[in-house]
Amino acid sequence: MSPEKVLIAGAWRTANAAGTFQAENPATCEPLPPVFPVSTWADCDAALAAAASAAVVLRDTPPERLGDFLDDYARRIEARAEELVETAHAETALPKTPRLANVELPRTTNQLRQAASAAREGSWRLATIDAKANIRSCYAALGPVCVFGPNNFPFAFNSISGGDFAAAIAAGNPVVAKANTSHPATTRLFAEEAQNAAEATGLPPGTVQLLYRLRHDDGERLVADPRVGATAYTGSRAAGLALKAAADRAGKPIYLELSSINPVVVLPGALEERAEKIAEEFSGSCLMGTGQFCTNPGLVLLVAGPPTEAFIGDLAKRFAAAPVGTLLSSGVAGSLQENVAALREAGAQLVVGGSSGGGRGHSFANTLLRVSGRQFLQQPEALQTEAFGNTSLLVVAADAAELESVLERLEGNLTGCIYSHTAGNDDELYARLAPRLRARVGRLLNDKMPTGVAVSPAMNHGGPYPATGHPGFTAVGIPAALRRFAALVCFDNVRPARLPEALKDKNPNGKTWRLIDGAWTQGDVMAK
Amino acid sequence: MSPEKVLIAGAWRTANAAGTFQAENPATCEPLPPVFPVSTWADCDAALAAAASAAVVLRDTPPERLGDFLDDYARRIEARAEELVETAHAETALPKTPRLANVELPRTTNQLRQAASAAREGSWRLATIDAKANIRSCYAALGPVCVFGPNNFPFAFNSISGGDFAAAIAAGNPVVAKANTSHPATTRLFAEEAQNAAEATGLPPGTVQLLYRLRHDDGERLVADPRVGATAYTGSRAAGLALKAAADRAGKPIYLELSSINPVVVLPGALEERAEKIAEEFSGSCLMGTGQFCTNPGLVLLVAGPPTEAFIGDLAKRFAAAPVGTLLSSGVAGSLQENVAALREAGAQLVVGGSSGGGRGHSFANTLLRVSGRQFLQQPEALQTEAFGNTSLLVVAADAAELESVLERLEGNLTGCIYSHTAGNDDELYARLAPRLRARVGRLLNDKMPTGVAVSPAMNHGGPYPATGHPGFTAVGIPAALRRFAALVCFDNVRPARLPEALKDKNPNGKTWRLIDGAWTQGDVMAK
Repeated sequence: MSPEKVLIAGAWRTANAAGTFQAENPATCEPLPPVFPVSTWADCDAALAAAASAAVVLRDTPPERLGDFLDDYARRIEARAEELVETAHAETALPKTPRLANVELPRTTNQLRQAASAAREGSWRLATIDAKANIRSCYAALGPVCVFGPNNFPFAFNSISGGDFAAAIAAGNPVVAKANTSHPATTRLFAEEAQNAAEATGLPPGTVQLLYRLRHDDGERLVADPRVGATAYTGSRAAGLALKAAADRAGKPIYLELSSINPVVVLPGALEERAEKIAEEFSGSCLMGTGQFCTNPGLVLLVAGPPTEAFIGDLAKRFAAAPVGTLLSSGVAGSLQENVAALREAGAQLVVGGSSGGGRGHSFANTLLRVSGRQFLQQPEALQTEAFGNTSLLVVAADAAELESVLERLEGNLTGCIYSHTAGNDDELYARLAPRLRARVGRLLNDKMPTGVAVSPAMNHGGPYPATGHPGFTAVGIPAALRRFAALVCFDNVRPARLPEALKDKNPNGKTWRLIDGAWTQGDVMAK
Repeated sequence: MSPEKVLIAGAWRTANAAGTFQAENPATCEPLPPVFPVSTWADCDAALAAAASAAVVLRDTPPERLGDFLDDYARRIEARAEELVETAHAETALPKTPRLANVELPRTTNQLRQAASAAREGSWRLATIDAKANIRSCYAALGPVCVFGPNNFPFAFNSISGGDFAAAIAAGNPVVAKANTSHPATTRLFAEEAQNAAEATGLPPGTVQLLYRLRHDDGERLVADPRVGATAYTGSRAAGLALKAAADRAGKPIYLELSSINPVVVLPGALEERAEKIAEEFSGSCLMGTGQFCTNPGLVLLVAGPPTEAFIGDLAKRFAAAPVGTLLSSGVAGSLQENVAALREAGAQLVVGGSSGGGRGHSFANTLLRVSGRQFLQQPEALQTEAFGNTSLLVVAADAAELESVLERLEGNLTGCIYSHTAGNDDELYARLAPRLRARVGRLLNDKMPTGVAVSPAMNHGGPYPATGHPGFTAVGIPAALRRFAALVCFDNVRPARLPEALKDKNPNGKTWRLIDGAWTQGDVMAK
């Protein structure tokens, strides 16, 4: 069977392939029929050339047109929803409903539409005008963006339909998408509709392109190529850091979303007040989607005592009773097994679960491990190994001081959460702990599990290294996510007619917020 | 003589030194008396420990206090202006007036005061509030910032008084300053007043610290240390890239301002219209401060023809007639000689100058070189060698198409400038060239030389690699420069009393601009 075609320069063409691969149905452990190519550098080079040409055209494309593309694409995705859900379900074993059809697909089209609005509205540019000096600056498109999507969100973080894609396009950049190899057929469906929408709205060939798989050295060459503007990567730490090293050497921005274990601190007063409710919330959050979320609560910090033992007992029962889900791939299952073993080797004791199987296809028992605070402090690095999946490590500190020390040893994470007594019984301890936790996470939560990542302008889906590559950027939340794929550009004494629309005296659409002489306004630059 | 003391943890203490060095008076080529230590890692470690402690205290310090510190420091600098000017003049040979006393010192205190206002006002944080979802985010202090200052601005970019220092402090971070080794005594004076101001305004010990010189491996270890929040470096490309590699490996943000040759394009109509005026502006810009500006116009692009030859003849006369300034150091003089030789080896012909000496102390003749567009295209990399100092390379393209090709081969630069006919005779060519130049620079100018870098909120003193390390940040311009030293922090469902002041319902001071539910306002979050 000849392999599927790649999308380069507006056309589906036979890959210049170095090999082929097939995805697997994780529920049946059987390979799926379509055969996909592993591209060589020739494909990358052709895609980059087309993207560079597209970037030049997009530089002069009105934002309205980018908005039309994103809206049209969202409609096309909805029209093909059933096929997308079936295909993604076959490739990921994620439930068709509610997850794929009712949660992730609407989230995906919502993101595309929010990005369309942001592109049209233009406030994401942070246009700043010093009228007297006639110096004007704003964020503007950076150039071709390479997107490497993760395995766990076949729609909402897909490299050719997800948050990074939407943000890169809305900022005016072409995207070279590298499919996640666990769901290539899903990605192909998206790419078809993305290309159809690009044609329908008159965007240049090379605005959206798709390669399925690259050899590692070609991936590193890709992100470092002079034609690239920036790269967005979501996935494993090892692969991400290899790409980061290559991009860094070439001085190319790369935004990484790597591992995160998302510490949840449950303070004594909260346990006393509502242990059962918290146990329910935690179990739901940790086992949802078989625990395969970037913000899965993989580390729970507790203070020793009988209520904590009772809480752990309750969690163990819930984990044992909950159905065991199917994992995304044999790779995820293998890593989970390895990483649970690594945690146990570092001294973690099994509370419940711990063995492979128990669900359909690739699966692993719902697993809880525990260590003392003292043990954690002896091996903080090994005990922060991410075991991606339906598992969590409970750290039982001897007292508040030890809990504080544990917090001080945490690596950078996307989220951190503190549950405390609603009447304020934990407030003194909260005040001691919260600044320490805050400094180590991108998003601090109160009384709420971290797995919901609202697409809100105020969201930060980011955090200190090694959760991401730079603590100043978010991968979720429009318009801030767009600025990752933008350069700050400045016009000094440039003649009025030559300024970009966003920086002319007249507000481009009456809606763009601009910082004019120190005040944010949707108005025009007033005559001096 | 025992070496000068370093400033660590609020006290002037004997360095743990690996050696000593002295600065030199570049006008006399004689060493200056004070002896300064080369610190070992022990000093770095002590400074980092103190900075980390200070960062914890600063986290809870009201912005008003940071503003008071910056204002008090500015006043102290003014009170000691004469001594600063004398010392800097001895160490750099820059003219006492107008340069040091009337230009750079007022710019320095102005930057500190602008930073004070920005800290108090708070709009730099880009506070974003989703009231309904109760998700709130803003930029916040990142942690200790290491500042490596350049040789060419002993005041305005000094590591303990300049733009990076002011921005890092205003964002709430302690600074570990590494003096530029060409002006350590100047830097010591600043540090004394910075420490006095910190004490007077009650900032914690370790808020401002000074080391004079480090071994290269200790510098690399410093920027990668887990206690560091970020690093700002301005200086040579080689040293900057070594620090970047170390910081990148550790996942630490580093903002670099490296080399830039700042292309100036003079279009045929502009030459026809006002060649003499442009020659005067160019000569002034290129020879001012003996050409030792980051934004010095080191590359001039022209289209061949008799007016261009006449223009070059005029420039040659001006360069020959202008006094030859003193260079900042023997190092600068040596590099200039080497880099002019490298340009000549790559085919550049001497128009005027080209030899060492001619001025007081370390000096080099005002130098113009020229190549054809064809030559440039054959060796674009070698012919973009930065010759830092009073020199520039003229590229004479055969025609507009060749000029366009030359532009396409330019590396990233801080600035790019186009002179065109005022009545529009060059507009067609401008339209072809400007987007190409814009994509390669941080700031595009019209009809104006790049050496003035106004401290305006709309300024971008940044640009694509290798001019800087990331195209999204500016080193000059408040408040944007502050965001380099900040993390995006998010509070999800956090109880009202626990929110930072910037994110509470009530506007912290009635002045902070915040993005509340999609609209920028200085008001409060309204009850739902």
